[in-house]
Amino acid sequence: MILVYHEKQAEKYAHHLTDQGLTKVVHARSEEEASEWLDQVEILFAWKFPAHLYQKMPKLRWVQWMGAGVEDVVRGLPESVLLTRIVGQFGKVMAEYAFTWLLHEYQGVNRFLEAKASREWNPKRPESLAGKTLGVAGLGSIGQEVIKLGKAFGMKTIGLSRTGSHEKIVEQHFFPDKWVDFASLVDVLVIVLPHTKETDKVVNQEVLAAMSPSSIVVNIGRGKTVDQEALLARIQSQKLRAAILDVFEEEPLPVDHPFWELPQVYITPHISGPSLSRDVSRFFMENYERLESGRPLLGLVDRHQGY
Amino acid sequence: MILVYHEKQAEKYAHHLTDQGLTKVVHARSEEEASEWLDQVEILFAWKFPAHLYQKMPKLRWVQWMGAGVEDVVRGLPESVLLTRIVGQFGKVMAEYAFTWLLHEYQGVNRFLEAKASREWNPKRPESLAGKTLGVAGLGSIGQEVIKLGKAFGMKTIGLSRTGSHEKIVEQHFFPDKWVDFASLVDVLVIVLPHTKETDKVVNQEVLAAMSPSSIVVNIGRGKTVDQEALLARIQSQKLRAAILDVFEEEPLPVDHPFWELPQVYITPHISGPSLSRDVSRFFMENYERLESGRPLLGLVDRHQGY
Repeated sequence: MILVYHEKQAEKYAHHLTDQGLTKVVHARSEEEASEWLDQVEILFAWKFPAHLYQKMPKLRWVQWMGAGVEDVVRGLPESVLLTRIVGQFGKVMAEYAFTWLLHEYQGVNRFLEAKASREWNPKRPESLAGKTLGVAGLGSIGQEVIKLGKAFGMKTIGLSRTGSHEKIVEQHFFPDKWVDFASLVDVLVIVLPHTKETDKVVNQEVLAAMSPSSIVVNIGRGKTVDQEALLARIQSQKLRAAILDVFEEEPLPVDHPFWELPQVYITPHISGPSLSRDVSRFFMENYERLESGRPLLGLVDRHQGY
Repeated sequence: MILVYHEKQAEKYAHHLTDQGLTKVVHARSEEEASEWLDQVEILFAWKFPAHLYQKMPKLRWVQWMGAGVEDVVRGLPESVLLTRIVGQFGKVMAEYAFTWLLHEYQGVNRFLEAKASREWNPKRPESLAGKTLGVAGLGSIGQEVIKLGKAFGMKTIGLSRTGSHEKIVEQHFFPDKWVDFASLVDVLVIVLPHTKETDKVVNQEVLAAMSPSSIVVNIGRGKTVDQEALLARIQSQKLRAAILDVFEEEPLPVDHPFWELPQVYITPHISGPSLSRDVSRFFMENYERLESGRPLLGLVDRHQGY
């Protein structure tokens, strides 16, 4: 039996699967709705599934998570169960998000919007991304797309990653023991890291202090990879030009957080990585067929690395 | 003698040339300042030079214009004088401009800025450029860069040009006799045309009527290539999603023009193509050396085509 679990769109996701000819598909939007099937479920296709339920699922052999970040799943799930996350789908749209806001800042969009509102013709030219140095921390499928767009805009590109397996896509590559050297070179730091023990608050005071006051931090990975207190302090003391933040230590960002009133901080509500139900369901179907035919699954999580 | 003419930065441009070892360089910011040298000038390096002065310059053999658009020069200049315009410099920055505002519109930047102002966490996802159809009218050095960025964002690309000489860079190419067919296919129309007899108001009511109501017009070429009245009417009747305009029939755009108060019209004051004095002066030096050594000049204007 396949259980589709999603607090809002469980039925929609389940339809995508039955449309593809799958049978024995059930769906649930809550713990209560899920409870009657737990002991029969072999495959779970889910988002925000309550982790304490895994112990009631003796037949479970594969979990396809509906997102890229699996830190909440990794904790409760027995190691014998296969866990896959969505990969390769988020790159283009997340890179698009990052460049939307970088261009907004560098091209002085607000200035032109204000000039328009006052019918003012002031041909002061904007800045350009071209020639600036883009540093991307995390060179997985998302980071690679960010690098690709950076090159298209004529930026210099450098990168930091744990494995170095994609070091050739950047002009200069750093391993995590060289965070400070890496940070000192960037005009723009885009963080696309998973949240693991190793990346927890890895962008700390020391790293931020190494960055130029004219540089910009963009976080589209996980909020907990950045020391938010340290970031706040750098921005408040004008030691950073701007921060573009789609993710936060606590989400939603509390209404009394000082970020809200800082003009140099752009805030979006964790929307950079869309999860269009059809695309995610297609990913599930691909993996389902791989499982059935004994081929390797896409996005298989290394349970020790945590992603 | 080389005359450098610019209403504001004549001295700065002249310095770039003398720094490169040129002698007999004079500069002027006005007709009055220029008048004493006119009969000796062989080479003119200029921006907004008064066209009626050409008849007082018997020794003039080459004009290097400081911009890409030469419609004002073409009129008064004897055909025996070589005329060159800047090419190849504007592409990347102008493409960057176009995508800044396209992303602004599609990614709903205003919505997120407003949500931030009211500390609101509303994770409604933005639209994406990926998969949309980008049509570029004019496939010279600027249009080519727009196409390149469009591809990097995962857009489908189509193009329209007079010669078809770069038709291979787009998925589908149209000649100017197929404007309506071309326009009917685009989600985004980027206009990068020179202003000539053939392109005067070429984006007319018929072309605009062929476009989908969800499509966007971007003009970074010349204002006079678009029938502004027709464009205004389409926008006022909500038959177009938005217009991103850096150029206008009359510049500055008159303060009482209806464009100013339409939220679907983005207005910038002809800033998309920067003319950084150093880069433009480098272009002059390259052409100067070519002239001296009898090699073909870059950006040579075909006086009959007008660009």
